[in-house]
Formats: sequence, structure tokens, C-alpha cells
Amino acid sequence: MKFIKAKYNGFTHKILIGNKIHNELILFLKKHEFKSKLCIVTDKNVAKYHLTSLLKCLKVSKIKVEVLVLNPGEKTKSWFNLKKVVEWLISNQVERNDFIVSLGGGVIGDLTGFACSITRRGMKIIHMPTTLLSQVDSSIGGKTGINSLQGKNLIGTFYQPSLILSDISFLKTLKKREYLSGYAEAVKKALIKDYNFFKWLENKDYNELREDKNIIDIIYKSCEIKINLVQRDEKEQGERALLNLGHTFGHALETANHYSRNLLHGEAVIIGCCLALQLSRKFNLINSNQCERIINHFKRLNYYTEIKQTNINNFTAQKLLNIMYQDKKVVNKKLNFILLKRIGEGLIQKDVDADIVKKILTNSIKG
Amino acid sequence: MKFIKAKYNGFTHKILIGNKIHNELILFLKKHEFKSKLCIVTDKNVAKYHLTSLLKCLKVSKIKVEVLVLNPGEKTKSWFNLKKVVEWLISNQVERNDFIVSLGGGVIGDLTGFACSITRRGMKIIHMPTTLLSQVDSSIGGKTGINSLQGKNLIGTFYQPSLILSDISFLKTLKKREYLSGYAEAVKKALIKDYNFFKWLENKDYNELREDKNIIDIIYKSCEIKINLVQRDEKEQGERALLNLGHTFGHALETANHYSRNLLHGEAVIIGCCLALQLSRKFNLINSNQCERIINHFKRLNYYTEIKQTNINNFTAQKLLNIMYQDKKVVNKKLNFILLKRIGEGLIQKDVDADIVKKILTNSIKG
Repeated sequence: MKFIKAKYNGFTHKILIGNKIHNELILFLKKHEFKSKLCIVTDKNVAKYHLTSLLKCLKVSKIKVEVLVLNPGEKTKSWFNLKKVVEWLISNQVERNDFIVSLGGGVIGDLTGFACSITRRGMKIIHMPTTLLSQVDSSIGGKTGINSLQGKNLIGTFYQPSLILSDISFLKTLKKREYLSGYAEAVKKALIKDYNFFKWLENKDYNELREDKNIIDIIYKSCEIKINLVQRDEKEQGERALLNLGHTFGHALETANHYSRNLLHGEAVIIGCCLALQLSRKFNLINSNQCERIINHFKRLNYYTEIKQTNINNFTAQKLLNIMYQDKKVVNKKLNFILLKRIGEGLIQKDVDADIVKKILTNSIKG
Repeated sequence: MKFIKAKYNGFTHKILIGNKIHNELILFLKKHEFKSKLCIVTDKNVAKYHLTSLLKCLKVSKIKVEVLVLNPGEKTKSWFNLKKVVEWLISNQVERNDFIVSLGGGVIGDLTGFACSITRRGMKIIHMPTTLLSQVDSSIGGKTGINSLQGKNLIGTFYQPSLILSDISFLKTLKKREYLSGYAEAVKKALIKDYNFFKWLENKDYNELREDKNIIDIIYKSCEIKINLVQRDEKEQGERALLNLGHTFGHALETANHYSRNLLHGEAVIIGCCLALQLSRKFNLINSNQCERIINHFKRLNYYTEIKQTNINNFTAQKLLNIMYQDKKVVNKKLNFILLKRIGEGLIQKDVDADIVKKILTNSIKG
């Protein structure tokens, strides 16, 4: 087991990364003299595979439990479910010092984190992320939220958890596409901040990336990079935005595709990274040799590297541009992008000309 | 015009208190180079009396405006309206650095503050409180929220505004009961923290309390006391709780009365203060002479000082006790109360025996 400490503005929490670490939850609750009922929020898929063993473990330790099981999927991040979770917590008479557990991927973590941040003006939350995506990315850094009818993640708070338990035994049930979607957020972090991490990843194939020891290291390095950025810029006034490499493009693709499962978040982010690489070249940043190394790594893992490869038909350059304008990171209608100066060094490029962006999009759609 | 600076954890804002100070809003927006549309949230009553003059002023300064007018009343602090305000703000394409204005009393301020705190993970808000209650209390300190079906203010955030404009010209339209309901929160602050403030208030009658010069001083002193407490304890881990003098009792009365207009918030708080005085006497705290001075001040202004005077029939001691247990300040089912050691010095009394509380309630109901 490995662990990292995150320190934000006087508030500290640990991230534990290991194999079968339910017992760490028990130890944490005992240490904090937890005596109330433990409210757990999860979804049907996660409940099917992972709830029983957790409940068994809690029962042995005589910790009383209430569980709320929601539907899986992005649609769960809604006003409807926010109200449902909050009112459920209140009806369970949670008190200010109680802990709530979110057991699930990014959807459950974002929704439950948001619900906890607004219930009695702030309940304590423990994240138990069950996907690679949530272990390397969404559980860290305190962004919580639901989707608006008008766009993704437009509603939410910054709210840090009290503990993150990243148990890699949860990842065994993940299918290949799901796993690689999460891995995209790890390799993205290497690209913006850590050349050596990328070099270590560069020649690994899919099977190697799923080995326990490697998984723990991938999660650890990803946490480390993200925590460092968030510690310096919790509210995303500046540097934290580097984490959005590939995301302005990626979110636009997901939105235009109505978040259908034929393009997963990480898949969209990888295409976004490839487009950001082209934009980086236009600004004479990263060299073509490094560019190629990155693309080769993506290709080795069978990611889409161009929009046309997705075979999704409703992408037009203008439509994607319009969506980017409604992105919450827009300031004064100017488009900002995260680009790469070199592998391991991202930068924020402000006021990018929409025409250049449109050209790159058109090329990637029509080729 | 008077002003105070509030400093919370590295974040600073001003409170301006004066007569007809719309121009201060314009100056503030210009200083911050505000160029977007200004979104204003208000209610029908406030719109009727005060919106036209504000809009005229903004028009002269060529600031574009969008207005959302909600129904007045406590019921507006609901999930339904939270969603309405948030989605309205997003549909107006507000950007991260834009300012939003809440123009209204505590309901509009709490709701709009909450909506701003969760829209794009935090929009900037300017409060223009229009009631004495909101000017001396609810607009200050950053508590935002809506009501749960299961209790008042159980859902919300801590979120500080960028500016508070307390314009006493708004108060001219307030009826006597409304005004005194707000004044209750001012005198409460004197009781917990400032003997000289109480002494200055003590012999004033209703007409004197409505004189412009006195109003400005009452608001100023109230802001000062509240800011000092909140600066030291923003998240209400300790000392901030002193502001709850009279509120554990008061909230229980309001809840049992379903927040009907036959018992206003401040009226319930004054009864709550009287009950807290009795409890303080049981603990040998405040002396009987000082107790009497406080009660006399309340009587001079025609407040109810006992539950039976309200002529509301559905109060029973057990019912009120049960409601107190569900109060969000309960820790481990022990009842905590704010009591007075003397005029100007409140204290937090933990683990109060429910039987003593029940006795005091029974006396006040049946007497």
C-alpha cells in the first residue's frame, strides 16, 4: 500500500492506494470515534460487484450502515438525484461530524461530494473510487457537481474529502475500454507535468498497464501530479487549468455526441490531446519528434487519434466551436487552450484565434 | 454613509451603509471593469417598490440588465427555485468573473447566494438587502441556503459576497412588525457581545429606532459584531454559534407554526431570548436585575415575551423539544444552548438536560 498526503489551505487528507484495503476504512472511522450510522451512496453496477464485501467488513466491526443505490451513468448527475441524496442524508439524521461514503466512479463521487458539500452546509465525505478514471483523476482535487441541461459540470462546488481510499481490487471488473478511458487521464498528467512518468509509460502495452504493481504506481504518480497543481491553485484561477489538456476539445465532442457510450470520456480526451498537439505545433511549441512519440503511444493502445475514426456522424467544426464558447472556462468569449511546450510541460495559451481551431477540427473530421 | 471591511480567510469585502446609495453599485461595477449583463434576482414585493429606481440608475450608466422576479415568502427558499435561479444564470451565459445582484430580504439573499455559490462552482455576488433583518443579519457572514422538507436552512453553503450595499431608503416601506422582526437580530447581538450597544438601545422607543441616523448606527454596530464573530469562526465550529441566542427555541416555534406569518422570525427569536434568559438563570448566570432590564426593553416595543401570548394553539413542550433534536446544531443528541452570563456576554452551554428545557417551555405555554 502507498499513501499521499494532500494539503489544501490548512485542510489535510490522505489518499491510500492498495489492494483490498477495506480495513483502512474501519481503522479511519475508529480513529475518529465514529458512532453514528454510516451512509453509503453507490450505483447498481458497483453494488452488484463490490457492496457485499464492504458491508460484510463493516458488519464485523459493528458499524451500522444505510445504503442508497442509484442508477449508473452520467444522467445520474442531475438535479433530481442531487435532491434525492441530500434529502436522504437529512432523513437519516446525519450530524455535522458524521462521515458519508461515496462508493463508485466519477458520477457517484461528483454527485455525492456535491450533496455532502451542501447538506447542513458541509458533511464530511470519504471517497472510495471504483474506476481507474476516478482513482487517477475525479476523486482528487475536490471538484464536485452535477450537469445542467445546458452543459456538463456547470453546477457544483469545490469541496475536499476527508479521505480517499483507492482500492485497485475494484478495477478487476473493468472492461478494456473503461480501463483505457481512465488511463487517458493518467497519461495526460504525464504529458503536462512529468517527462519521466511518460517515458516509463511510453513503451508499455495494455497488459502491462493492468499489472497490479504498475496500476498502483500509475495511480500514485497521477495523484501526486494533480495534488501538486491543486495545492497551488485550488479554485482554478491559473495553473490548475493545465489539467484540462485535451478537455476543451474533448468536452465539445462528448456534448455533441450527447455523452453516448460510443465515445467514452477518456477516448474523447485522447482525441482532444491529439488536436491540442496540432495546435501546439501551429504555435511552434512541441517538436514533431515528441509529437510522434505521444501519438505512437496512443496508437499502440488503440485509441482514436482523429475525430473521423470514431465513425460518429454528427460532428461539424462549427458545432464543436459553438459548444466550446459555452464552456465554463471561457473568459470574455476568448478561447483558451492547454498546449504542450514539450513532453512534461504544458502551458495555458490564451486568446486563440477561432479560425485556426476550426481548421484543425475540419481536418480531423474530414482528413 | 458608513462602511466596514470584512476579512475572511484572505478574502475581503466591504459593507456600505447609507441612504440612497445606488450609485455605489455603479462605482463598484466600473471599478471592476464589468462589461457583461448584470443579472438581478428579486421578488415581486421588492420589485414593486424598489426595482424601477435601480434599473433607471443602471440604464443611465449603460449597464445591461436581466431581472428574475420570484414570489415573495419563505416558501421561495426551495429546491424548485434553486434550480430556477441556477439554470437562469447559466442561460444568461454568466462567466466566472461576472457579478450577480440579489435585491431583497433574507429569502432572496439566501437563495441567490446559494445559487451563485454552485453556479460554475462560484459566481461573484453583490447583496442589496432590502429589509432590516437582512441588513443587520442575514446578508452578513456568508450563510446561504434553502429549506429542506425536513427543516429550515438544512441545505446550503458558506459563501461570502463581494459587496454588501445596505441602503436604508429600502426600509421606508417596511411595516412596524416587519421592522421589529429585523430589530430583534440587532438587539440580540448587543446582548451577546456589547453592553454599551444595549445601553444605547435600551431606552429608545419604536419611533426613535426608525430615525435614519439611529438606523445607520444600529446596522453598523450589528455588522461589526457579526463580522468579528464570523472572522474568527467562519464555519461555525465554535464562537459564531453565539449568534444563535434565542434561535434554538425560536426555530422550534417557527417550525411548529409552519412558518406562518402570525409569528415572524424576529418575534420567535425574542421569545427564544426570553426562554434562554430563564435557562441562564437556572444555571446561575445572568442576575435578575439585568434579566428584567432586557425583558422591559422587549415589552416597551410590544414583543411577545412568552409563548402563550402568541395565542397560537399548537405548541406543546414535547413537540418543540422533538424539533430541537432535529436542529442542525445538535451534536450527538445533546442539546446546546446560547445563554447569557451578563448583558453583553453570551456563552455556549453544552449538554443541557432536556427536562429543564421542557419545564421552561411548559411554563411559557401554560404559565
